[in-house]
Amino acid sequence: MVINMTADATATELQHVIDRVIECGFQPHVTGGSERAIVTAVGSGGSPVALETLKVTPGVAGVVRIAYPFKLASKLARSGRTQVNVGGVIIGGEEAVVIAGPCSVESREQIISTAWAVKAAGATLLRGGAYKPRTSPYDFQGLGIEALRLLREVREEVGLPVVTEVMSINDIQLICEHADMLQVGARNMQNYDLLRQLGKIDKPVLLKRGPSASVKEWLLAAEYLLAGGNNNVVLCERGIKTFESEITRNTLDLAAVALVRELSHLPVIADPSHGTGKRELIAPASRAALAIGADGLIIEVHPCPERALSDGAQSLNPDEFARLMKGLSAPIRPVATAWTAATASGG
Amino acid sequence: MVINMTADATATELQHVIDRVIECGFQPHVTGGSERAIVTAVGSGGSPVALETLKVTPGVAGVVRIAYPFKLASKLARSGRTQVNVGGVIIGGEEAVVIAGPCSVESREQIISTAWAVKAAGATLLRGGAYKPRTSPYDFQGLGIEALRLLREVREEVGLPVVTEVMSINDIQLICEHADMLQVGARNMQNYDLLRQLGKIDKPVLLKRGPSASVKEWLLAAEYLLAGGNNNVVLCERGIKTFESEITRNTLDLAAVALVRELSHLPVIADPSHGTGKRELIAPASRAALAIGADGLIIEVHPCPERALSDGAQSLNPDEFARLMKGLSAPIRPVATAWTAATASGG
Amino acid sequence: MVINMTADATATELQHVIDRVIECGFQPHVTGGSERAIVTAVGSGGSPVALETLKVTPGVAGVVRIAYPFKLASKLARSGRTQVNVGGVIIGGEEAVVIAGPCSVESREQIISTAWAVKAAGATLLRGGAYKPRTSPYDFQGLGIEALRLLREVREEVGLPVVTEVMSINDIQLICEHADMLQVGARNMQNYDLLRQLGKIDKPVLLKRGPSASVKEWLLAAEYLLAGGNNNVVLCERGIKTFESEITRNTLDLAAVALVRELSHLPVIADPSHGTGKRELIAPASRAALAIGADGLIIEVHPCPERALSDGAQSLNPDEFARLMKGLSAPIRPVATAWTAATASGG
Amino acid sequence: MVINMTADATATELQHVIDRVIECGFQPHVTGGSERAIVTAVGSGGSPVALETLKVTPGVAGVVRIAYPFKLASKLARSGRTQVNVGGVIIGGEEAVVIAGPCSVESREQIISTAWAVKAAGATLLRGGAYKPRTSPYDFQGLGIEALRLLREVREEVGLPVVTEVMSINDIQLICEHADMLQVGARNMQNYDLLRQLGKIDKPVLLKRGPSASVKEWLLAAEYLLAGGNNNVVLCERGIKTFESEITRNTLDLAAVALVRELSHLPVIADPSHGTGKRELIAPASRAALAIGADGLIIEVHPCPERALSDGAQSLNPDEFARLMKGLSAPIRPVATAWTAATASGG
Repeated sequence: MVINMTADATATELQHVIDRVIECGFQPHVTGGSERAIVTAVGSGGSPVALETLKVTPGVAGVVRIAYPFKLASKLARSGRTQVNVGGVIIGGEEAVVIAGPCSVESREQIISTAWAVKAAGATLLRGGAYKPRTSPYDFQGLGIEALRLLREVREEVGLPVVTEVMSINDIQLICEHADMLQVGARNMQNYDLLRQLGKIDKPVLLKRGPSASVKEWLLAAEYLLAGGNNNVVLCERGIKTFESEITRNTLDLAAVALVRELSHLPVIADPSHGTGKRELIAPASRAALAIGADGLIIEVHPCPERALSDGAQSLNPDEFARLMKGLSAPIRPVATAWTAATASGG
Repeated sequence: MVINMTADATATELQHVIDRVIECGFQPHVTGGSERAIVTAVGSGGSPVALETLKVTPGVAGVVRIAYPFKLASKLARSGRTQVNVGGVIIGGEEAVVIAGPCSVESREQIISTAWAVKAAGATLLRGGAYKPRTSPYDFQGLGIEALRLLREVREEVGLPVVTEVMSINDIQLICEHADMLQVGARNMQNYDLLRQLGKIDKPVLLKRGPSASVKEWLLAAEYLLAGGNNNVVLCERGIKTFESEITRNTLDLAAVALVRELSHLPVIADPSHGTGKRELIAPASRAALAIGADGLIIEVHPCPERALSDGAQSLNPDEFARLMKGLSAPIRPVATAWTAATASGG
Repeated sequence: MVINMTADATATELQHVIDRVIECGFQPHVTGGSERAIVTAVGSGGSPVALETLKVTPGVAGVVRIAYPFKLASKLARSGRTQVNVGGVIIGGEEAVVIAGPCSVESREQIISTAWAVKAAGATLLRGGAYKPRTSPYDFQGLGIEALRLLREVREEVGLPVVTEVMSINDIQLICEHADMLQVGARNMQNYDLLRQLGKIDKPVLLKRGPSASVKEWLLAAEYLLAGGNNNVVLCERGIKTFESEITRNTLDLAAVALVRELSHLPVIADPSHGTGKRELIAPASRAALAIGADGLIIEVHPCPERALSDGAQSLNPDEFARLMKGLSAPIRPVATAWTAATASGG
Repeated sequence: MVINMTADATATELQHVIDRVIECGFQPHVTGGSERAIVTAVGSGGSPVALETLKVTPGVAGVVRIAYPFKLASKLARSGRTQVNVGGVIIGGEEAVVIAGPCSVESREQIISTAWAVKAAGATLLRGGAYKPRTSPYDFQGLGIEALRLLREVREEVGLPVVTEVMSINDIQLICEHADMLQVGARNMQNYDLLRQLGKIDKPVLLKRGPSASVKEWLLAAEYLLAGGNNNVVLCERGIKTFESEITRNTLDLAAVALVRELSHLPVIADPSHGTGKRELIAPASRAALAIGADGLIIEVHPCPERALSDGAQSLNPDEFARLMKGLSAPIRPVATAWTAATASGG
C-alpha cells in the first residue's frame, strides 16, 4: 500500500499516518522529502483493509494498493523518476549516459589508455573489473585489490567516476573506498546476502538482471536494496538465456527496458556487449536501447580486444567505440507515409 | 558456394560456369541479371573443392564458400539488399514502411474504417486476417473467403495494398487473387509443404519467425521459398518464447533484426504487437525496431480493441496508432558526453 | 461442460440432453457409446449457467465444468483411459509398446533388416520416414511414395504394423493406404489445416509435441483431431527447446508425460531418441519414461547409424536396441531405508 | 590432463610426475590414495603437449586429455564413482537415499513430528530450511539460528542426519556445527565467493543446479568446490526454467541426471518437489528419477502443507510421502513384445 500525502500535509499529519501504518501491522517507509511525502507500507502480516481507511485522514491525498509485490521499486511509490548521482554524473536525467571500459583491469597501461580513449569518445563513467565471476575456477579471476588501486588512480588522473563489480560481502568496504558505484553481476542478482549488505551502504548500486530472471524477480531483487535503505539503484538489462545461443550469446530483452519504465521509477540502462555477445550487433543494439527509453549504456572497450584476458569477442576497440558514439545521435530511419509513397509510385 | 561473375563477363562465360556447377554435382541458381551475375551452387552431394578451381576461369571475379547452410538467403549471394515490391510499395528501400490493420477481418464497417484510419496516420499497407490459426478449435477461425472479398473491396476503395495470412495450400490460389502479399504465420514457419508451394508463386511472401526458431532455422525456411524460385521474401521478427511470459506474451528479439541484416540480403520487419503482447510497450518497441535497422513494422489496429474477436489486448485503437506514427520521427535521446557533463557538474 | 449420463439413461433422455445443449448455444459431442454416454458441450458462444441446470434432468448423473480449454481431450470427458488399436497392437493398455525403426526409409535392404531386428528384440510396431521435414531444403527429403511401398511390403513380410509421418494434406489418402498410423511431426503440431484433415480419417494419429508447445497447447492440438471426429489419438513427448542445447539436442520433459496422464484420457508415449539426441542417454531415458507412466516408446534404430542419411547421431544399432529392450524389465534401484541404513552403519 | 598412475607406482615415481606437472605450468591435484593414484593437472597457462610426454614415464599407466573444462569433476579424474558419507548415510552407494522434510523449520512441534514421520516411511536424512532465499524481501526468511538449534536437537532425538541451506559465508561456521550437510541453493550456484569458502570445509555439500545453468556450468560450479579441496560433493537436479511455467513450476531435466553420470564421478540426486512444483507429479517423477540413475531424492514433506509458511503447494503430507516411498519399489510397467502381442491378437 502506498499513502500519498498532500503537498501541504503537516509533520503531525505525516506522523499520524506513520503510526497508523505500524498499528495496522506494516513497516512504514517514507520518501519524497521536502515536496510531497509518500508513505509505503511494507510487510505481509498487516491488514490492507484497515489501512485503506486512511484515505479520509487529514493530509492524505490518496491510498493506492500495489498489485505487484515490489512496493518501494514501484512507480506508485514515488512521484517522479529517480535520478542517481554517480560521482557527479546523473543517471536517469534528461540525457543518457555511457559507461565504458574493459571487462577486466589487466594493467596500468591498459586501463589508463582505455580511460582516456572512452572519455575522448564521450563516455562519462569508466567500468573495469577487479573481481571477476568466472564459470571455471581455472579462468582469470581478476587482479583484485591491485585493480582497485589502479581504478582509483585512473579516476583521479582522467576524471571519470568508476563502476566495478562486487562479488563478496567481505569486499564491500574496500570497493566503496575505491569506486563510485558497485555493480551486482547477473549471477549474483539473487544473492540475497550480498543484496542485504548493499542495502546498507551509501554508494549507488548497478543491479544487473539475472540470465533467467523475470522482470518481476529483478524488481524484487532491487526491492531488497531499497528495503535496506539504499535508494541509489540503477537497473541493467544484459540479455537473457533462451534457446537461441548458437550465434548470439544471450537474447537482449529490450522490451524489458520499456517495461521497467512502465512499472518502476528506477533508472534502467542496457548492456549490449553481454546482451548480444557479438561485436557487429553492439552499435545497432545501442541505438535501439536508447530509442526504447534506456537511461544509458554500458559497453566493453579494450585497447586490443583479441588479447583481452576475458570477453574479447564482444569488446570494441577504441575506434569502433568512437564510431558507435557518433552513431548514437544519427536520426532514426524515416517512414514512408501514404502520401510520400503515393508520390513515389505516381512519379 | 557462390560464384561472382565479373561485370563484363560474356553469356558464354556464364554458361560455362553453369555447366561446371552441374558437372561438380550441384544445382546452379543464377541471380543478379543485367549488372553482374551471381551463380549459387546448391545441394549437398557435390564437390566444393572441384568448384573452387572456377576462380581462375575467364569471367569469374571470385568464388566464396558460404559457412552457413542458407545459400540463396545469404548476403553473399547477392550484391546489394533485396527490395520487395508489394502492390507498388517498396519494402527494403530507403524508407521504412508500416503495415497496419486488425488481427481479423470482422465486418465491412470494421475493416473499411480501420483502413481509412491507418492510411490517414501514415500506414502504406493494410493487414487483416481471413484465415486465423487459433490454439483452440473452438475459437473464432476467421471469416475466410468473405474476408478476402472485403479486403479486395477495401483495397480498391482506400488504395492500400493488402497483406493476409495463408494457412492451407488449398487457399493459395484464392488468396493470390485477392491480396498483394501472403503471410506465413509463426506456427507454419516450418510447414515445408506450404513453403514449397509458396516458392512457386509470383506474389511476395511475409515469413514470420517461429516462436522457437533460431535465426538460422528462420533463414533456412526462407531458403525453401528462394530455392523454389520466389525471390520476393520479407522476414518478420515477432517475438520468441522464453521463460518470461507472465507480463509480456513473447520476448521481442530485436537483436535478431540486426543479425538478419548482417547475414542476409532479405528485408526484415518487426511485429511489436505480437512481440510484446502489451499495449504500453508497442510504441517504444516500434521506435527501437527502426533504430536497430528494421525495414518496417506490422502493427495491429482495431477500431475498438476491447470488442475485437481476437488479440484485443495487444491492439491499438486508431488514435493510439496515430500517436505511435508521430513518435517514430522523434529524435533519439541525447547522450551526455564528458564535456556536457563536466559543464553540468561544474555549474 | 461435460454431461455424464447415468448407466441406465434412455435414448430419449440422451436426445433431450443433446437438444438442450444446442438450445444453450453449444455443439454437442457424444462419446461413451454402449456403456455410459457422455455429452460434451463445446463452443464459446453458449451459456454455461443455463447448461448447469441439466444436472436435475432425468438420465443425467452429473454436470462438470471443465476449467481447461480442451474438452474432448480432458480426463473428465471419458470414464476410462482411451486405448488406440494400431493394426492389432493396443497403445494405452496394460502393457507398454515399443515402436522402432529408422529415421528414414533408405532402401529395401535397410528397412527389412531393421524390421526383423527390432521385432526380434521385442518391438511391436515399425517406424520409418517416407516424407521428412528437414530444416534445410538441400537435405535428404525422404524417398516418398517409394518408401511407402517398401513399408507396406515389409509390414506384410515381417508382420509389424507401420507408423509414418504425414507432412502434406495431399499425401493423407496415399499414406492411409500404406500405413497403420499417421504421425504428425513436432513442427506441424500447430499446422491446423493438417490437423483438421486428419480429424476426418479413421486411421490412428500419433501427435508429437511441438518443440516450444506448452502441455495445454499440445492438448488443444489433439482437440482439433478429436473435434473433427477422430478419437484414435496418441500423444508423443519428444523433447522441448530450452537454453540447454550444447550437449543434448532437446530437453526431454518427462514430467509432461505424468501431467498428460493427470489431465487427459489419451495415451502418451515418449521419444527418447529426439528427446535427448545423445545415444548414451536413450536407454536410461527409456526406463524413466516407463517409470513415469508412458504408454510406450518410439526409438530410432538403424542397421548402421554412422551411415544413416538422417539423425545418425541419435540412432541405435540393432545390438544396442536389443540391450535397451532387455534393460526395460530390470528392477528400479532399491532405496536405503532408515532400518537398512541403521544396520549398515551399525556394522 | 589426467595422469593415471599404475597400481604399483612408487612414491618417488608419483613425486616425479607431480614435479613435471608443475614444471609444465599446471597445478597438480592428487586423488585415489591407497589403491591407484591419479594426478590431475589444472590451470590454463601450461603446455598440454609437454605433459603428454609423461605417458612413457615409469609408474604412469596413461595420460588422458579432458575435453570438458571440468577436470576434477570429470569421470576421468577418478577410477570409480564417489561415495559421500553424510553422518553415516552413504550417497552414491548401491542403494538410493531419500532426504525428506519441510521447506522451512517453523517450530519444534512441526520439525520433530515431520522427522519421526519421514523416518517411519523410510527416509534416512532430514532436510529443513533455517535460512531461506526468498524472491521478495517481505516473505518469511526462515528462523535462522533458532532453526539450526531445533535441527540439531531433532537430529539427536530422531537419529537422522541433517541437511540445511547456507546462504551467507558468515553462517558457514555456525551451520557446520549444527548440520551434517550444507546445501547450496539454485540461486547461489554461481555465487563463487560462497563456493570458494565451502571448498575449504570438511562437511559434505549438496550443490543444486541453477535454474538456467547448463550441465557444463553446473559441473564447473562443482569444480570450484573440488579445486578448493572439498571432495564431498553431491549434485542435485531441481528443474530448469523453460517457456513452460503455466502448469508446472519448472521443467525437471531428468536426462541431465543420466548425463551427469556419463560425465562425472560425483553422486547426483533429484528434487521432484521443486522440479515439478505440482503435488500430483512428485511420486511418478520420483520413480522416474531412480529409473534414470539418480542416487537419491530430496522431497518436501510438511505435516500440514496448506499451512506451510513456504512452498505449501508442492509439499506432501506424511501419508502422501509414505505412499510415495512404497511406490518406489513397484516394478516398472511391462512391455508388450512381438510374441506376447501376437498371442494377444491371435487369441
